[in-house]
Amino acid sequence: MSSGLPAVDVTAGAAAYARQQQLTKPPGSLGRLEELACWFAARLGDPVPGMPRCEVFVFAADHGVAARGVSAFPQSVTAQMVANFAHGGAAINVLASMENCHIEVVDVGVATDEPPPPGVRNERIRAGTRDLAEESAMTPEEVTAALGVGARCASDAFTRGARLLIAGEMGIANSTAAACLICAFTEATVDAVVGRGTGVDDAGLGRKRDVVRMALARVARDVSRAPRRILAEVGGLEIAAIAGFYIESARRGVPILLDGYISTAAALAAVAIEPGVLEWMLASHRSAEGGHGIALQALGLEPLLDLGLRLGEGTGAALTLPIVRAALTLHRKMATFGEAGVSGAADTA
Amino acid sequence: MSSGLPAVDVTAGAAAYARQQQLTKPPGSLGRLEELACWFAARLGDPVPGMPRCEVFVFAADHGVAARGVSAFPQSVTAQMVANFAHGGAAINVLASMENCHIEVVDVGVATDEPPPPGVRNERIRAGTRDLAEESAMTPEEVTAALGVGARCASDAFTRGARLLIAGEMGIANSTAAACLICAFTEATVDAVVGRGTGVDDAGLGRKRDVVRMALARVARDVSRAPRRILAEVGGLEIAAIAGFYIESARRGVPILLDGYISTAAALAAVAIEPGVLEWMLASHRSAEGGHGIALQALGLEPLLDLGLRLGEGTGAALTLPIVRAALTLHRKMATFGEAGVSGAADTA
Repeated sequence: MSSGLPAVDVTAGAAAYARQQQLTKPPGSLGRLEELACWFAARLGDPVPGMPRCEVFVFAADHGVAARGVSAFPQSVTAQMVANFAHGGAAINVLASMENCHIEVVDVGVATDEPPPPGVRNERIRAGTRDLAEESAMTPEEVTAALGVGARCASDAFTRGARLLIAGEMGIANSTAAACLICAFTEATVDAVVGRGTGVDDAGLGRKRDVVRMALARVARDVSRAPRRILAEVGGLEIAAIAGFYIESARRGVPILLDGYISTAAALAAVAIEPGVLEWMLASHRSAEGGHGIALQALGLEPLLDLGLRLGEGTGAALTLPIVRAALTLHRKMATFGEAGVSGAADTA
Repeated sequence: MSSGLPAVDVTAGAAAYARQQQLTKPPGSLGRLEELACWFAARLGDPVPGMPRCEVFVFAADHGVAARGVSAFPQSVTAQMVANFAHGGAAINVLASMENCHIEVVDVGVATDEPPPPGVRNERIRAGTRDLAEESAMTPEEVTAALGVGARCASDAFTRGARLLIAGEMGIANSTAAACLICAFTEATVDAVVGRGTGVDDAGLGRKRDVVRMALARVARDVSRAPRRILAEVGGLEIAAIAGFYIESARRGVPILLDGYISTAAALAAVAIEPGVLEWMLASHRSAEGGHGIALQALGLEPLLDLGLRLGEGTGAALTLPIVRAALTLHRKMATFGEAGVSGAADTA
C-alpha cells in the first residue's frame, strides 16, 4: 500500500474551468458548484464528466470499550442495526435508494456468535475489538486484515464500475475510538474532540473523556508514531477497514466522498499511511459532533453541507450526492454565452 | 391582501415530531432534516407528507438605474437571458428539469419594444422601472399591478396542484434595488448591504453605494414607512411581483422556498405588508452577496445551504429541493425501533 497513486488530470480540470467561464452566468456565481465540476473533471479525467456511478459501503464492528458505558446505546444495537440495514430500514438505505446507489453492508467484527444476516458480507475478523482503555484494541495482524477487507471492497466496487465511493459505519462506542484517533493524528485536546456521539449523558461524557485520556497516554509512549500502530492501539475494525477502503479507492483513481466523524477519523489514518489519498477526498458535511470540524480542518477539507447531522452510516455523504449531480449536470447542460447569444461581462466596457 | 392567512397545523407537526423519535436513529441525529420533516408536516397538514409538487417562477424586469453603471452586465442581458430561459439553457432550467419542476418565465417589465419570446408569460407592466436614484421607480398603480401579477402566478400554480413554490428573478441592476429595500426594511448600513452583485468592479461598487444612499435619503423623507410606498420608491417590477407571489402563496397555505438576495428583499417587503407570510417561508441558501445574511437574519430564517452561490434565478432554492425530498423520504420510509427490533437509547438504563 505504498506510493503509486495515480495523478489527477490537471488538463481536464483546466478545460472544465475554461468551460465554466463560458456558461451563461456571471463567472464564479455558482460558487462551490463550479469548484465541484472542476474537481471531478480532474479526477475522472474528463472535461465534461457525467455523474459517476456511486457505491456505498457500511462497515460494522463492535468495540470492547462499549462495556465502559461510553455510549447512549447498548452494544447489542450494532447487530440489530446490521439487521436493519439488511432489511432496508435505516437512514442510509433510504438515501442510497433515492440515489440508486448500490449499498453493501460489511460485518468486519460485530460482537455476536451468530453469522451475519443474509445480504450482509461476512468479513468478520473477530467479535469486536479489545477494550482500548486498557490494551491494544487490535493486533497488528488484525489491523492488516481489516485494511485488506476495505481494500477488497473498494476493488470490487471499482470492478463493477463504481467511480465514486462512500464509506459509512455502524459500531456502538466507535465515536470513542474515533476521538482517540483524531486526538492522536491532530494533537487537538481531548475536551475539544470528544463529544456526545449518539447522545451520551453528562456522566457518560465524563467516562468517555477519561477513557480517551487513558488510551492516549498509552499511544504517547509509542515513539514510532506509526499510523498502523496507532490504529491498532485505539482504532476499530470498521475504522481500519474504511482506511483501507480509502487507500485502495485512491489507488484505483476513484474519488472518495467522506461522511462524518468516524469516517473522517479513518481518513486521517489513511492519509497518515498514504498522504496522496487526500487528493482524492471530498468532504460532504460537517457533523454536529464538534471534533469533526477539527478533523476536517487537519485534512484541509471544507465540507459542502452543515445540517447538524450526527448519524454516521454514510448519511451525510449520500445526502451530498444530489449536490454533486447538480454541479455536474449544470456543467454539462447549461448553454454557453455564444450558444445563447448572451453578452458577457466583458462586453460592457 | 390583508389578514386571513391559514394557520399551520400544529397537530400534524407534533405527530411528525413524535414519529421522528421512533425512527431507527438516535433522536435528533438527522439534525435539520428532522426539523424539515416537521415543518412540512405542519404546513401540508399531514404527519407523514409526500414530496409536494413544486413550481418555479422566474420574474424578469429591467431597472432604470442600470444606466448608472451599477452592474457588470449591460441592460440588454435581461432580454437575452429571458430568451435563454425560454430555450432551456440557463442554470435554473437545468436544476428545475432535474427536479421535474414546472418552470414559468414571466416578463413583468423587460426594457424592450419586442414582445417576449414564445413560452414566456407576458405580464409586462412597463419597459423597466424609472431610475430609483432620482425618482420613484414605480407609481403606486404599477406596484399594485406587479403585486397582482405575482398573486395570479401563485394562484395559477396552486390550481395546477403546486404545494411548494419558488420565485427566481432576472433583471440587470436588480441587486441595487434589492440593496435599497434591505436597507430600508432592516436599518442595516449601506456598506454592509451593498455588494458586487454579478461582479461589478470597484468603481461600479462605489457608484452603486452612492446610488443606494441617494435613494434611501428620499425614502427617509417619507414618514409613513408604508411597505408599498418603499417598494414604489426603490423596488422593481419583478421584486414587487415576487412579493405578491409570496403573499398569495401563504394565503393559499402553500410553503415558500426562498432563493437569494433579490428574492429575500422581496420577502422582506411581503412580510412588511403581511407579517403572517413569514410562517410559510423556508430559507434555502445563504448567498455570497454579504447583505443576504443580514436580510435572512432580519426575517429570523436560517438557510439550509451555504455554497457561495450568487446567481439568483431561483437556483439556490431549486438546489435545495433534493434536501427537502431526502428529509421527507427519510421521515416516511425509515423503519421505527419497534418495526426493526432495535433497542432505543432508553433501553440502556
